[in-house]
Amino acid sequence: MHALAPLFLPKSVALLGASPDKRNFRGRLVSVLLRHRTDAPLYFVSPSHKEIEGMKCYATVREIPEPVDLAILAIPAAAVSGVLEECGRANVKAALIVSSGFADENTEEGKARQENIKSICRKYGIVLLGPNSEGFLATGVPFAASFSAAVANGEYHGEKFSAGHKGIALVSQSGGLGFGIYNRARLHGLKFTYVVAAGNQALLGIHDFVEYVLQDPDTNVIVVVLEGLIDASRFLTVLKKATGLCKPVIVCKIGRSEAGVSAVTTHTGALAGNYQAYQAVFRQYGVQEAHDIAQVIDTAGCFSHLTDLLPPGRRIGILTPSGGAGIMLADKCEEQGLEVNQLDSLTRRRLAEVLPPYASLANPVDITAQGVIETGYAAPLKIMLACPELDAVVVVCATYSAEYIAADMESLRAIRETCHKPVLFCSYTSSDQEASKLLAEAGYPLMGDMQNCASALLAMLNYHRYLERMQSPETQVPAASQAPVDLKQFGERKVLCEYEVKPLLAQPGFPQSGGALARSAEEAVQYYEKYAYPMAMKIQSPDIPHKTDTGGVLLNLDSPEALRDGFFRLMENAAGRNPYADVHGVLVEPMAEPGLELMLGIYRDEDFGLMLCAGSGGLLVEVLEDVSMAPVPVSKDRAGCMLEELKMWELLTGVRGNGPADVKALVDLMVRLSGFAEANKDQISEIDLNPVIVHPDGQGLTIADALIVRNKL
Amino acid sequence: MHALAPLFLPKSVALLGASPDKRNFRGRLVSVLLRHRTDAPLYFVSPSHKEIEGMKCYATVREIPEPVDLAILAIPAAAVSGVLEECGRANVKAALIVSSGFADENTEEGKARQENIKSICRKYGIVLLGPNSEGFLATGVPFAASFSAAVANGEYHGEKFSAGHKGIALVSQSGGLGFGIYNRARLHGLKFTYVVAAGNQALLGIHDFVEYVLQDPDTNVIVVVLEGLIDASRFLTVLKKATGLCKPVIVCKIGRSEAGVSAVTTHTGALAGNYQAYQAVFRQYGVQEAHDIAQVIDTAGCFSHLTDLLPPGRRIGILTPSGGAGIMLADKCEEQGLEVNQLDSLTRRRLAEVLPPYASLANPVDITAQGVIETGYAAPLKIMLACPELDAVVVVCATYSAEYIAADMESLRAIRETCHKPVLFCSYTSSDQEASKLLAEAGYPLMGDMQNCASALLAMLNYHRYLERMQSPETQVPAASQAPVDLKQFGERKVLCEYEVKPLLAQPGFPQSGGALARSAEEAVQYYEKYAYPMAMKIQSPDIPHKTDTGGVLLNLDSPEALRDGFFRLMENAAGRNPYADVHGVLVEPMAEPGLELMLGIYRDEDFGLMLCAGSGGLLVEVLEDVSMAPVPVSKDRAGCMLEELKMWELLTGVRGNGPADVKALVDLMVRLSGFAEANKDQISEIDLNPVIVHPDGQGLTIADALIVRNKL
Repeated sequence: MHALAPLFLPKSVALLGASPDKRNFRGRLVSVLLRHRTDAPLYFVSPSHKEIEGMKCYATVREIPEPVDLAILAIPAAAVSGVLEECGRANVKAALIVSSGFADENTEEGKARQENIKSICRKYGIVLLGPNSEGFLATGVPFAASFSAAVANGEYHGEKFSAGHKGIALVSQSGGLGFGIYNRARLHGLKFTYVVAAGNQALLGIHDFVEYVLQDPDTNVIVVVLEGLIDASRFLTVLKKATGLCKPVIVCKIGRSEAGVSAVTTHTGALAGNYQAYQAVFRQYGVQEAHDIAQVIDTAGCFSHLTDLLPPGRRIGILTPSGGAGIMLADKCEEQGLEVNQLDSLTRRRLAEVLPPYASLANPVDITAQGVIETGYAAPLKIMLACPELDAVVVVCATYSAEYIAADMESLRAIRETCHKPVLFCSYTSSDQEASKLLAEAGYPLMGDMQNCASALLAMLNYHRYLERMQSPETQVPAASQAPVDLKQFGERKVLCEYEVKPLLAQPGFPQSGGALARSAEEAVQYYEKYAYPMAMKIQSPDIPHKTDTGGVLLNLDSPEALRDGFFRLMENAAGRNPYADVHGVLVEPMAEPGLELMLGIYRDEDFGLMLCAGSGGLLVEVLEDVSMAPVPVSKDRAGCMLEELKMWELLTGVRGNGPADVKALVDLMVRLSGFAEANKDQISEIDLNPVIVHPDGQGLTIADALIVRNKL
Repeated sequence: MHALAPLFLPKSVALLGASPDKRNFRGRLVSVLLRHRTDAPLYFVSPSHKEIEGMKCYATVREIPEPVDLAILAIPAAAVSGVLEECGRANVKAALIVSSGFADENTEEGKARQENIKSICRKYGIVLLGPNSEGFLATGVPFAASFSAAVANGEYHGEKFSAGHKGIALVSQSGGLGFGIYNRARLHGLKFTYVVAAGNQALLGIHDFVEYVLQDPDTNVIVVVLEGLIDASRFLTVLKKATGLCKPVIVCKIGRSEAGVSAVTTHTGALAGNYQAYQAVFRQYGVQEAHDIAQVIDTAGCFSHLTDLLPPGRRIGILTPSGGAGIMLADKCEEQGLEVNQLDSLTRRRLAEVLPPYASLANPVDITAQGVIETGYAAPLKIMLACPELDAVVVVCATYSAEYIAADMESLRAIRETCHKPVLFCSYTSSDQEASKLLAEAGYPLMGDMQNCASALLAMLNYHRYLERMQSPETQVPAASQAPVDLKQFGERKVLCEYEVKPLLAQPGFPQSGGALARSAEEAVQYYEKYAYPMAMKIQSPDIPHKTDTGGVLLNLDSPEALRDGFFRLMENAAGRNPYADVHGVLVEPMAEPGLELMLGIYRDEDFGLMLCAGSGGLLVEVLEDVSMAPVPVSKDRAGCMLEELKMWELLTGVRGNGPADVKALVDLMVRLSGFAEANKDQISEIDLNPVIVHPDGQGLTIADALIVRNKL
């Protein structure tokens, strides 16, 4: 039996704090439990009432004559720990605390209360949902333990699930938002298996609930509404499990705009927000994002109805009774990078046979309003599904009434049973609930919004490709092969300079630039004579991390005099900037060949730990904010994807007569850098290789600056 | 009386092609006209029926015993011109042709039919809506002449309008989309004055209908759903009129993704799509865009309810019963560039007095679900409206039932009557129609989507600022002061080279670069001796418009030998490229000082004529597609806005230790270039100044290349 079963499938339930007053949430819980209760016995506990709704009230949980699986605590925060102790002593197995006034209050008192209930639950092994949770709904039982108005006002008879009709599980930190989405989605004919409001996640977190619903055979899609995670690494483990089960996870991340990352030293790190780290993780684990309530619902609806029919490509056929509505959807599809391509001549000919003469056979196929009356959707849809040049078909429709859908229902059902491509319906009018229901029963999602229709198609395509890619060896992270480096030699110092970093990175695969530290002008000149190229000189000081902005770099020095002068100039600039800077000398290197400038780096995200970052270098990064990232360690596949996500990707592949850059070498460096970071993850907080100059294809790259910030010593 | 009155307010109506069959659009028109008819007499014309729905049928329009104002033609396309002739002879004043099979069919036959009905209407002075129009709805009368199912299934009793409750007029090219939007919007409690489906716009176009509804005193917002315009310049005149009346115009432009612009010669032109020209025009005329049905509805609802209360700034207060829903909206607001700023301590103190202790007083102000029950929305809303640091307030709410809205209704009504800031409601659950209706009656828009709520707030702010800016002299275009230049000297040649263009532009305000054409290596060397700077050399040939990509430019030549060699090299490259190129020589100029590279240009848009373009130069433009534009001539204000719209704007203002560039000189050049284009608009098709090098503030700019493409000769 699953550890969370006493919570979600309790054999007996007690409501602590029951009240007859329907205006408050305790009263609402009473009605909900009475209406939605399972076969499990239900008990009310209230010291101030003898009876509520004809049911006896117990003064305390101890007085209940049989063991209680789930205790629902709806009592003032200050009283919770005492009552929870009592529950523990009475062998209660699970607790749902709906009361607020814990960590949610953001006071010392609230935090202390939360710590207190955590230790009580740990002591007695009580499985805890909350505190500050709006509760949950398990529709298969059916059992509702929530004061949400969306539940309180609904009637429940238990959802029926089958192999072809599975449901969505929704795990939301915010109860209001979670049950709000549920409330809206039901009007779209969507079925839910679970709705769980995680609340403060004092002990059990979002990841635990996602893990629980994942193993439910009736659940085929998981929606997560997320502010923050209490254990990011376990969340990733759960996401891996979801991939293994081919159950898509849709995340709505809220609190994206907050400044999540504490100040970091490197430029790479400074550009990264915590939400970007979340996005990177979502990309890596095939999580599809949705940012608005309607988008969550439309995306979840598509996946739930079409898990068996994900589109393999981006070619979308549109069938529409309104030319304008078809064009609007085509615009949205093309904005998402999908193609509304022309149909082959055979398909056009076959369409011409069934459609009235005034229909347009171009894609979007405009059958006109009169055409729907005469021909219906099924016949042309069948022809479009047979077209080898389409990966999915959207039927634009007017569902203000169910009339035309109902008329076609038999054929539509038959089509759904045999078709090999996803079909979505998308309404440009208001939607009659009967129409949604008919379509849902036949296995078609009904989109309420063209933008969301297009983004859901893209999400399904992305998820399909993600599952496919997971088969490839390129997506495997190479086994850790490096030993950690020894940083003891640097004592207590936090920042390591380029001349110190490069030897640390010196392993097969890391490009070497062949420079050396000069401690005097004479030493600098010696290097000139050694290499005889034009040279670059860079000040080396842990106190001057940003060299370029502070006059710490000189380029194209091509004579002994220039080197000598340069040395003194750099020293002078450094002293002018910071007279107390600990200056180790000047790094003298042959000038790098020209190429495209990128920055590569590692920084520590508060949730996901070390992240590999890649971004445009130079002025581009300022204008573009062009950074992509992934949690360390990365595979070759992921490193390549990171580059493709960059706006400068086009430059890397070559534009306007410039040939392609050495992307292979760059991907290699990224994988190695991430491996280095992984091997040294406890010692290192940030790494900055900025710029990395990527030379033309086959000619490698040059690391033109490097910096390491050590982890707390 | 307005010329379109016989169409929209007919004194008598005839339906030609009436049918008892409700399954087709003729039968639907019969039901709609019977239900929605005005006091005006209604006649049915049908040669095949004696009587429909108890009403006599006439065989032809001539048999009708009294003059007919409006004839509705619902007959096969092939029969339309004959019947229209008859209508003309019977002095019918207006015609609505719902039949398809004209220019919409995209056949020669269809086009010929359309030309034919145009000349008949012109001959008899018949006001024409259509053909291929789904008709219209005038709710004030009420009169509906449409076969749209959205109208056929609705019951009408006439909308009541008053000073405080005006309505939305909707003009849509696509009837399906237009009536679909109307159908959905009615569920949101929105009131419409007119819905017009413009159809093929054979004679009267979108602009005529917008002009008609503009003069309606009950209309305060105009929504336009647009594929294309038949007369862009008259549309602009109508937009100016709308600005004068302070009636906002919201446009949903569909067909954005189609490749609208024919091939153009210049780089500037090639980057411009026709939709970008539309966007430029929309910005210039204060038109707010909406791209999806829900967004159109939410934006129109905001403007219609809040025309008197546009937000003066971007500081948004959020009041919410769900923390999660509040954060979601805050994310959306911040993504739109709005601010969800902290509240002052007085406001927080006053909120603390009315809210329960567990409420959060930060912005979003989370009053919790229980707080709504106990306190309601009105009391905290009033306090937030008094906060001097907020420009608008959004009340997030759960409207699955009207209960809590109804409970607060009296206070909410009182607040709306006295408040000086816009208040929007935004629901995170499904919406009960009663809740929408209550809020709408009190003058509050109810948003169904957080994204749209944020974008509507931004649209209102933008429109407010637009109206304000229209007061400033900077927005006035300077009177045309230039005489056209004489291009006869260039004979039949279409492309003019840099050395020819620069003297044409040589007027006060145009920067001069002081170069000259060298026809031989010796001439080139003479210039070197004259200027003694490092020099640039550029091949001059109308057959080589893109010099840089083809080895036609040499830079930093600093000796007579370099110039001499350079001359021969350029000639050789040109001959290698195109042995038949007409090479005029080499332009020798002093090297420009460094600066930021932009491109400025003029190109001819198919709808709006000459457009001024500005964009990032160099590699940036390839990666960024960073172009902004405006129809010629532009004001200083508009030129400045164009630069602010660019992604490279940050570079122009100075980043990372670089000072600001000479934006004043750039704006000046843009205004002058646009004036030059305006003065020569019949002779010129494209101008390309690319790159324009903008030097640091106060140091002007250099035009480093120039090209003119003449208009068809």
